[in-house]
Amino acid sequence: MGKNLTTRKEDYSKWYNELVVKADLAENSGVRGCMVIKPYGYAIWEKMQAALDRMFKDTGHENAYFPIFIPKSYLSKEASHVEGFAKECAVVTHYRLKNAEDGSGIIVDPEAKLEEELIVRPTSETIIWDTYRRWIQSYRDLPLLINQWANVVRWEMRTRLFLRTAEFLWQEGHTAHATEQEAIEEAEKILDIYTEFAEEHMAVPVIKGTKSEGERFAGAVETYCIEALMQDGKALQAGTSHFLGQNFAKAFDVKFANKEGQQDYVWATSWGVSTRLMGALVMTHSDDNGLVLPPKLAPIQVVIVPIYKGLDQLEAISAKVKPLVKDLRAKGISVKYDDRDTHKPGFKFNEYELKGVPVRLAIGQRDLQNDTFEVARRDTLEKETVKASEVIDHIEELLQKIQENIFNRALAYREDHITRVDSYEEFKSLLESKGGFFLAHWDGTPETEERIKEETKATIRCIPFPAEEEDGKCMVTGKPSARRVLFAKAY
Amino acid sequence: MGKNLTTRKEDYSKWYNELVVKADLAENSGVRGCMVIKPYGYAIWEKMQAALDRMFKDTGHENAYFPIFIPKSYLSKEASHVEGFAKECAVVTHYRLKNAEDGSGIIVDPEAKLEEELIVRPTSETIIWDTYRRWIQSYRDLPLLINQWANVVRWEMRTRLFLRTAEFLWQEGHTAHATEQEAIEEAEKILDIYTEFAEEHMAVPVIKGTKSEGERFAGAVETYCIEALMQDGKALQAGTSHFLGQNFAKAFDVKFANKEGQQDYVWATSWGVSTRLMGALVMTHSDDNGLVLPPKLAPIQVVIVPIYKGLDQLEAISAKVKPLVKDLRAKGISVKYDDRDTHKPGFKFNEYELKGVPVRLAIGQRDLQNDTFEVARRDTLEKETVKASEVIDHIEELLQKIQENIFNRALAYREDHITRVDSYEEFKSLLESKGGFFLAHWDGTPETEERIKEETKATIRCIPFPAEEEDGKCMVTGKPSARRVLFAKAY
Ligand SMILES: [Zn+2]
Ligand SMILES: [Zn+2]
Repeated sequence: MGKNLTTRKEDYSKWYNELVVKADLAENSGVRGCMVIKPYGYAIWEKMQAALDRMFKDTGHENAYFPIFIPKSYLSKEASHVEGFAKECAVVTHYRLKNAEDGSGIIVDPEAKLEEELIVRPTSETIIWDTYRRWIQSYRDLPLLINQWANVVRWEMRTRLFLRTAEFLWQEGHTAHATEQEAIEEAEKILDIYTEFAEEHMAVPVIKGTKSEGERFAGAVETYCIEALMQDGKALQAGTSHFLGQNFAKAFDVKFANKEGQQDYVWATSWGVSTRLMGALVMTHSDDNGLVLPPKLAPIQVVIVPIYKGLDQLEAISAKVKPLVKDLRAKGISVKYDDRDTHKPGFKFNEYELKGVPVRLAIGQRDLQNDTFEVARRDTLEKETVKASEVIDHIEELLQKIQENIFNRALAYREDHITRVDSYEEFKSLLESKGGFFLAHWDGTPETEERIKEETKATIRCIPFPAEEEDGKCMVTGKPSARRVLFAKAY
Repeated sequence: MGKNLTTRKEDYSKWYNELVVKADLAENSGVRGCMVIKPYGYAIWEKMQAALDRMFKDTGHENAYFPIFIPKSYLSKEASHVEGFAKECAVVTHYRLKNAEDGSGIIVDPEAKLEEELIVRPTSETIIWDTYRRWIQSYRDLPLLINQWANVVRWEMRTRLFLRTAEFLWQEGHTAHATEQEAIEEAEKILDIYTEFAEEHMAVPVIKGTKSEGERFAGAVETYCIEALMQDGKALQAGTSHFLGQNFAKAFDVKFANKEGQQDYVWATSWGVSTRLMGALVMTHSDDNGLVLPPKLAPIQVVIVPIYKGLDQLEAISAKVKPLVKDLRAKGISVKYDDRDTHKPGFKFNEYELKGVPVRLAIGQRDLQNDTFEVARRDTLEKETVKASEVIDHIEELLQKIQENIFNRALAYREDHITRVDSYEEFKSLLESKGGFFLAHWDGTPETEERIKEETKATIRCIPFPAEEEDGKCMVTGKPSARRVLFAKAY
């Protein structure tokens, strides 16, 4: 396995596409815009799911499952919602195939046309709120804190593995509350969970904020988000949490009797993260040698490669390695002992570097004599020789160090790429030469936001939260502004 | 919460439908044939998933994810496969909605018609084997042992919660092997896993066997299955594992170089269980008071209900209960302490009986004085008073006993309802009066099988495996037969 990766400097975008495929994370399928998530990539996604699921359950949420199909009339009930999704809907119109009468093959049976078309869910607010109408009568039924793990489809014209695909996997939370305040607190609590997950599990530093009106979720009153910075200076939205007000409750007529017996519409949130996080993970940490995975999400945390000539040497090494594998597993560390005799050690080193395995042990004849292992860490590519008696402690420490180091490295890069600018000229120039996030004053109008986007391709990523008040003047129009907002070009 | 369940005797089918809804497992949605799986039902499904996933991984399988859409041309490549699924396909024909020009609302944009229609997967053999062509070149790439957790859609005209729904959740394994023998062994190994899961986790006894040709999966050479018996004497197919021969490898041109360097088609299996198992679970154990859940799959294994007047009494009880809750959780037992003051103990007893919680503890003033708990088991409804110092051991034992007891009860029912018959008259008469499984001789022809089905609605559930050879004569035609096969009416 030669890596032959395009370097980040040569072509960042090509580097990413090649890496995702060569590291066995995902590949394009024969279905336009739909990806195949390969076992190694899926194993990382499973670790993400497990951590998030635990956090949701620890905060009182339960999982459920709602239909994949949404009747067209449901989607149409909330006006801005359907406007936001109409242009990218996969539509089911028929329910049967048949043999063509002229013998030309299998065709859609024109007689099996649905009375009402069904949309493959792009998101599930409408079908869920149609259900909540049956579940909610009284304040005693609230809050309703539900999450769903599911696939969704948005018919994107230009797709990229993990970052933008027609079908993707995600979780979508949908909660119902008796008061506005409680719903807002829920949306913010979830943003904190996403932040903790991104920073502590993915080792990806993020900036929390709210979206400008133009970037809000279709149907939301407020959209909270976390924004990460990739190594090419572009931002990536890593999760969103929406305060939906009473919009969906009104569209689907979901009322409850409060403690005083009065009827009121229910308050709502929705929130989600998707397999897009896989793209963020790859682009934040990886290098020209391949993936760099945070130990907390690595399917294999430690790989052990024997270096030997002949079966006798291999047996001696295996006798030493097998108890170590057992001890590491007992500590909850996932270990692979790669004693395949069909591949040379150099090939294996390359492969595990490409796949981002955090810690690699090698053991040859000299190590056997000296009672040592060679320990290499993926993040810095440093190697050292460690006594066998100390190797378990060493690995435990190292996994923690790597987790911290890649977070700190990403944080340093991000801090180095947040620039405060006060003039539009400076903004435009630095956006091209340096990239990254820009904190600048904006007059708060959609017109100015749109102009900046058209002229520079940069968008308002968020209004950082909690807000830091600072009087200033819009860098474009000079009109007054009460706080800086965060701009960047984005994925 | 009054239970007011229809009894099994009154109307078994109605009892089932009511129970699924009242026990908060699932309900019908606004989308024809698609169900909503409610949190309590989904929590059981998650426990099923976790146990199965562990068993698959322990036998070397990995998870991956393939597209939900299957191009019509893919589905058409294996002739008997498409014939089996064509009549129940949800077909995506368009990818955009728009506002009607006459202002009548949202319509499907006729200009956004797909060049090739996409089928929402009814099963994934075709898209997966199209992918395997890229993954398999050499015997070194084999075996490929992959599983997928996914939703699938089969457009059934008559649907019932869990048992037959247009959309359902399942796992589908798809493996590729170098030899016929290895593929057959894989199909049989999976059947053993399914059997172990059904009997040891669900406490549902099953009979293993192979399907007759007429009941085989569309595209399979051999279909293995497990069959369970419900309390109304009808059979339910609880899982299938297919040996696919080289059918899909040939349809998708998947060849590999063997050790001698020769090209050969790859051998395949596929296998699956679905949310249908939820139906089997409900129908096997539950009674006229509600669900009876096996402790291994119960979301709540133990519920504790305080019986008190006033806050002082509640506080005294809580002081006693909270350390117990902690100790039980430390042993991995899931406990709920229901101290809601909005509901009376009687209401709570009813609710947890309906929801099948295996063990219920109650504690009132007298228990407090005597240092005891009242312990009730759901399967037999028996109660006893247990000393506080013994209650943890007692609960641990009881959970195990309940798991065993409901299995043995279901097994006794099943054994009592397997009848060996030698004449068609006897078969028809006992099928109506007694129901259950029938072991009878059959001449092996599709014609006789079809005749029996038309005249009695009974089908061949399986040819029990391993086969018990016994010379005999077909109960219908008198032609020679080498073994008895298993008949029943089925879900
Ligand atoms: Zn050290
Ligand atoms: Zn006892």
